[in-house]
Amino acid sequence: MARFQLKCTECHQNFPENPDLLLCPGCSRESGHPSLYGVLEIEILDPPSRLPAAPPADSGSLMAFLPISDPSSLAPLAVGGTPLLPVPRLREKMQMSRIWLKDDTRNPSASTKDRASLLVAAKALEYGKKIIATASTGNAATALSAICAASGQQAVVFVPAAAPPAKLIQMQSYGARIIAVDGSYDEAFELCNAACREFGWYNRNTAMNPFTTEGKKTAALEIAAQLSGEMPDFVVVPAGDGVITSGIAKGFAELESWGLISKNPRILIVQPEGSSALIRALEDENEDIRPQPGATSVADSLVVEAPRNSRWALKLIRGSRGIGLSVSEEEILHSIPKLASLTGVFAEPAAATALAGLEKAIRLGILSRENSVVLMVTGSGLKDVAAAGKTLPEIEKIAPGQEGLDRLVRDSIRILG
Amino acid sequence: MARFQLKCTECHQNFPENPDLLLCPGCSRESGHPSLYGVLEIEILDPPSRLPAAPPADSGSLMAFLPISDPSSLAPLAVGGTPLLPVPRLREKMQMSRIWLKDDTRNPSASTKDRASLLVAAKALEYGKKIIATASTGNAATALSAICAASGQQAVVFVPAAAPPAKLIQMQSYGARIIAVDGSYDEAFELCNAACREFGWYNRNTAMNPFTTEGKKTAALEIAAQLSGEMPDFVVVPAGDGVITSGIAKGFAELESWGLISKNPRILIVQPEGSSALIRALEDENEDIRPQPGATSVADSLVVEAPRNSRWALKLIRGSRGIGLSVSEEEILHSIPKLASLTGVFAEPAAATALAGLEKAIRLGILSRENSVVLMVTGSGLKDVAAAGKTLPEIEKIAPGQEGLDRLVRDSIRILG
Repeated sequence: MARFQLKCTECHQNFPENPDLLLCPGCSRESGHPSLYGVLEIEILDPPSRLPAAPPADSGSLMAFLPISDPSSLAPLAVGGTPLLPVPRLREKMQMSRIWLKDDTRNPSASTKDRASLLVAAKALEYGKKIIATASTGNAATALSAICAASGQQAVVFVPAAAPPAKLIQMQSYGARIIAVDGSYDEAFELCNAACREFGWYNRNTAMNPFTTEGKKTAALEIAAQLSGEMPDFVVVPAGDGVITSGIAKGFAELESWGLISKNPRILIVQPEGSSALIRALEDENEDIRPQPGATSVADSLVVEAPRNSRWALKLIRGSRGIGLSVSEEEILHSIPKLASLTGVFAEPAAATALAGLEKAIRLGILSRENSVVLMVTGSGLKDVAAAGKTLPEIEKIAPGQEGLDRLVRDSIRILG
Repeated sequence: MARFQLKCTECHQNFPENPDLLLCPGCSRESGHPSLYGVLEIEILDPPSRLPAAPPADSGSLMAFLPISDPSSLAPLAVGGTPLLPVPRLREKMQMSRIWLKDDTRNPSASTKDRASLLVAAKALEYGKKIIATASTGNAATALSAICAASGQQAVVFVPAAAPPAKLIQMQSYGARIIAVDGSYDEAFELCNAACREFGWYNRNTAMNPFTTEGKKTAALEIAAQLSGEMPDFVVVPAGDGVITSGIAKGFAELESWGLISKNPRILIVQPEGSSALIRALEDENEDIRPQPGATSVADSLVVEAPRNSRWALKLIRGSRGIGLSVSEEEILHSIPKLASLTGVFAEPAAATALAGLEKAIRLGILSRENSVVLMVTGSGLKDVAAAGKTLPEIEKIAPGQEGLDRLVRDSIRILG
C-alpha cells in the first residue's frame, strides 16, 4: 500500500487520513459560489520507483500508487486495465501518425467512472461505512451500483429523472436504490449532499470525495505504462465536473515529479457548447467558472451548470499548459459513427466529444498533425443508442429468399458503393 | 503460428488450408436437412506444450494455438483477454464455493462473437478477400462490423429486421452494410449464403466458416489459463446455433488431449424453451435436431429454428459427458437483475440464461453444490435494455431541494428496507 495524506488544493494544508473528511474545513464554503472550494488531494508519501508493468492488469495491480490499505478491499470486478489502441485507420484519416484511444468503454459498467467507484467503495469498506451515496448524470451512479453489487455494499444514487433509459435500467439491475430527481444534475448533487449529512451515508459525490479523483488517476498510470513512459504531446479529455480531467492530469503530474515519465502531456479538455463553463473560464483566464443555468447537451454525461471541481481542474489544466475547446451538438453526434467506423470503438456522445475536440484543435491550428495524442474514450455508445442513431439513415428491409437475392443483385452497386 | 489442416467432423477426411473451402465437399448437402453436414474442424498439427500465461492478454497472445500466419493479420482491437470473476456474493447465494463468471461482455463490441469475427477477418485478410458477409441474430453482425471498422475491411451483415435496436444502431455506427431481412434469422442465414455464392464474398456464417468455432475456442484457452489448468466440473454455455458451445468444448478437448489441463469439463448447454432444438435432440438421443418453426424467445441471440452446427455441437457435448437444459422466459428475465445485483455483471437475456440454467440444474439435482462451475456470460445487458427492464419496478421521481430531502427522511425506511 501507498502511505498518503490529504492536502487542500487551495491552502495546501495537510490532513491525516480521516473517514469523515471530505473538503478542507477552512476553505470549503457551505454556500456562495457553487463550485467546490477546498477539494482535497491525495498526496502519496512513498512514491514508487518505477511504472507499473504493461499491458496493465486491473486496478489491483496499481496498489503501490493507490491509497488503499489492503488489496482485498477492492471489489472483485476487474476495473481498469483497458486497452490503449493504436487506431491505424483513424491515424490515416487524420494524417497523424501517433493517435491512440484509451478505450475505457471496456470497464465493467462500460465507463471510466468505475475507476472512481472502485476506490471509493474500497475506502468505505475500510472505514466501516455501510451505505454509499452519489449524485450522477448516470455513469457514476451506474458504476457505483455495479461495484456495490460485486462487493455487497449498498448504493444510493441520485440521478436526473431524464437520464438515458439504458443507464437507469443498468443501475437498477445492479440493485441500487435510485432517487430519480425531477431536476438537473446540479440539484441531484445538492440533494445527495444533504441526504449524506442527514443519514450519515458515505458521500461519493465527485470531487467532494477525494478518492474519486484518485481512482480516475489510474487511467493516467495505465497510459504511462502502456507507452513505456514515452508520453504523448496531448491527452484529450471530455469534461463535465472536471474530475476525470483532474485525475488524469494529477496522475501525469505525479509521475513526472517522480521522474517516471518523459514529460507531462498537455491536457486538452472538450465540452459541449451547451455546457461549457470550464472552457469559458479558461478563455477568460478566470479562477472561478460562471455557472451556465439550463446547461444542456446530447452529451448528457457532461451536462453540468456549475462544474464542481472547476477550481482544481483549471489549475491542473493550466499547470500542464493545457487548453479547452467547446464543440457543437452536430460535431458531437457526427463523431460517434466517425469514431466507430474508423476504430471499432463505439462511444457515447460524451466520449465521442474527444474526437470532435481533436478535429477542431487541428482545424484551429492548436494541435499540429505531428503531435502525438491520446483520446480518452470515457463511456460506451450502448449507454445511449438513441443519440448514436440520430445521424444514421433508416435501415431498409428486404425480403428473404430469391426475391431478396434478386433485389441484392439489382442493388449491388448501391450496397457496396 | 500453429500449423493446421481442416478435418471433416462427419467423415474425418483431412483437407489442406483452402480459402474457398467451407464445408466438407463430400458430406455437405445443398438441400435436405437444415442443419449443416460436414462442418470442418481446424486441426492444430504442432500443439503447444504449455498453457498461455494468465491473466491472459488479448487473442494476439494465443498465436501458438491459432491457425493464423501472422499476428499482424489480427485487427487492432484487443479482442478477448476478458476477466474470470470469482463472484463471492453469487457463491454465497448459491451456497457453492466454486463459481466463476467468464465475463465476455467486456469484448470490444460487448459479446463473445468478437472472438470469432477477429479470426475470420484475419483469415479474409490473408486470403485477399475484400468483403466479409455474415448472417446474425445481432451480436455476430455487430462483432464483424466492429472488427472490420478497425481493420479497414468491408462487412455486409444480414440480420432479422426485428433485432434489438441497440444492436442495429451499434453495427450501423461501425459502418457495416446492413441487409435487414424481413424474416427469421434462419432466412437471413440462407440469404447470406446465397449472396456469398453470387458475389464471391467471404462467408463468415457461423459454423459454415471453420474459423468461427476456432475463434470462440479462445474463451476456453483463457479459462484454462486463468484456472492454471485446474478445470471446473462444468462449464455452462448458452446455446443457439451451437458454435460457442463447440468452440469451448473443442478448446477443452484439445487441451486435455495435449495434456495441458487436469480434465475435460462437462458442458451444460442452456436454451430458452421457445428455441430449444438442441436440448430436445439431447433428450431424445438424436444425432439430428428437429427444427422448431417459429422459434422465439426474449433471448434473441439464441433464437434459431434449426441450429446450424447441431451435429458437431451434439457430438462435442456428449463427448464431454455434457447435458442440456431449457429455461422459461420468466427464468431468463429474472436472471438478469439477479446476476447483475449479485456480481456487478449486466448480461443480455441470452447471457443471463447461463445462470437460469445453473439454478435449474441444481434444483433438478443434475449439479451438486459441491461442483465447480464456470458460467459463460456471452453478451452485455446494454445490448437490450428493454428486456432487462421488463421485471424492474417503475422508478418514482422526487423533487429536488428541501422538499425532496423531507420526502427522503419520511421514506428512509422504505428506501433502504
